[in-house]
Amino acid sequence: MFADHAMRPNERTTDRPLRADAALTFIGTIRTPWTEREDCPRQGRLDGPECRLQIEAPWDAALDGLEAGQTLEVLYWLHRSRRDLTLQSPSHVEGTRGTFALRSPARPNPIGTSLVRLERREGPVLVVRGLDCLDGTPLLDIKPERCAHSPENSGMDSI
Amino acid sequence: MFADHAMRPNERTTDRPLRADAALTFIGTIRTPWTEREDCPRQGRLDGPECRLQIEAPWDAALDGLEAGQTLEVLYWLHRSRRDLTLQSPSHVEGTRGTFALRSPARPNPIGTSLVRLERREGPVLVVRGLDCLDGTPLLDIKPERCAHSPENSGMDSI
Repeated sequence: MFADHAMRPNERTTDRPLRADAALTFIGTIRTPWTEREDCPRQGRLDGPECRLQIEAPWDAALDGLEAGQTLEVLYWLHRSRRDLTLQSPSHVEGTRGTFALRSPARPNPIGTSLVRLERREGPVLVVRGLDCLDGTPLLDIKPERCAHSPENSGMDSI
Repeated sequence: MFADHAMRPNERTTDRPLRADAALTFIGTIRTPWTEREDCPRQGRLDGPECRLQIEAPWDAALDGLEAGQTLEVLYWLHRSRRDLTLQSPSHVEGTRGTFALRSPARPNPIGTSLVRLERREGPVLVVRGLDCLDGTPLLDIKPERCAHSPENSGMDSI
């Protein structure tokens, strides 16, 4: 599980077991061109390659109302990340920082968030640009971008 | 668990049991002025009231490097949300839409995301503005805002 992160100088871990406080359910799978971590771009770009969000039943029924061109927030589970690091020494940043001061995939709850543009929908598949994650990454959630919504029409906390 | 959402016209649910595919661990608790859903603002504002992110050990050791004035992305668990809705009819939006076309808290993985401004750190507590969630909401993650980071210094996918 921790294959993607060997320890670096000054890094610290907790040896306390992770409590299981809530359960996630995978709603589908992300297909990208990148099958190895070293191939992934460091950050997604809206002019990057097309990627596919494959939504599984019954959640394909929850896609109604999404429109091509929309910016979406995508949440996914960084399933190959270690979860025990408190201090990290990224290779490209000077020094050592707390996990919460970095966007590193290694974190107690390894949830990635990206903003993507919806190119089109093909049935239960959303074709998007803007991702940077590995092929096969489990999908957790899709939401309209928060900035696109005024308090009057966001649907946020509305129900 | 579903007390906060009675069914509205044209809404649809799935009766398929949620698979438990991965476990979340709560890293702390969010303290806000709002103890009832109807008191919460519809969307957080950076000039809203101060709220407190109380980080629990061992994760307080992962806060090093955060700086006052920074914009942070906060992820939290909307613990009172129902998780079975596929179509929703929000009270303030015309018609019915798929769950993924709304930022409603009712979703298969009820993870809220907000951008907040860090006012100051008080030991294991981050004082922030910009939240809209209930007092007592479980905290999942804190990351630097993605926009604040160029590909060269983000730490994203760097390890």
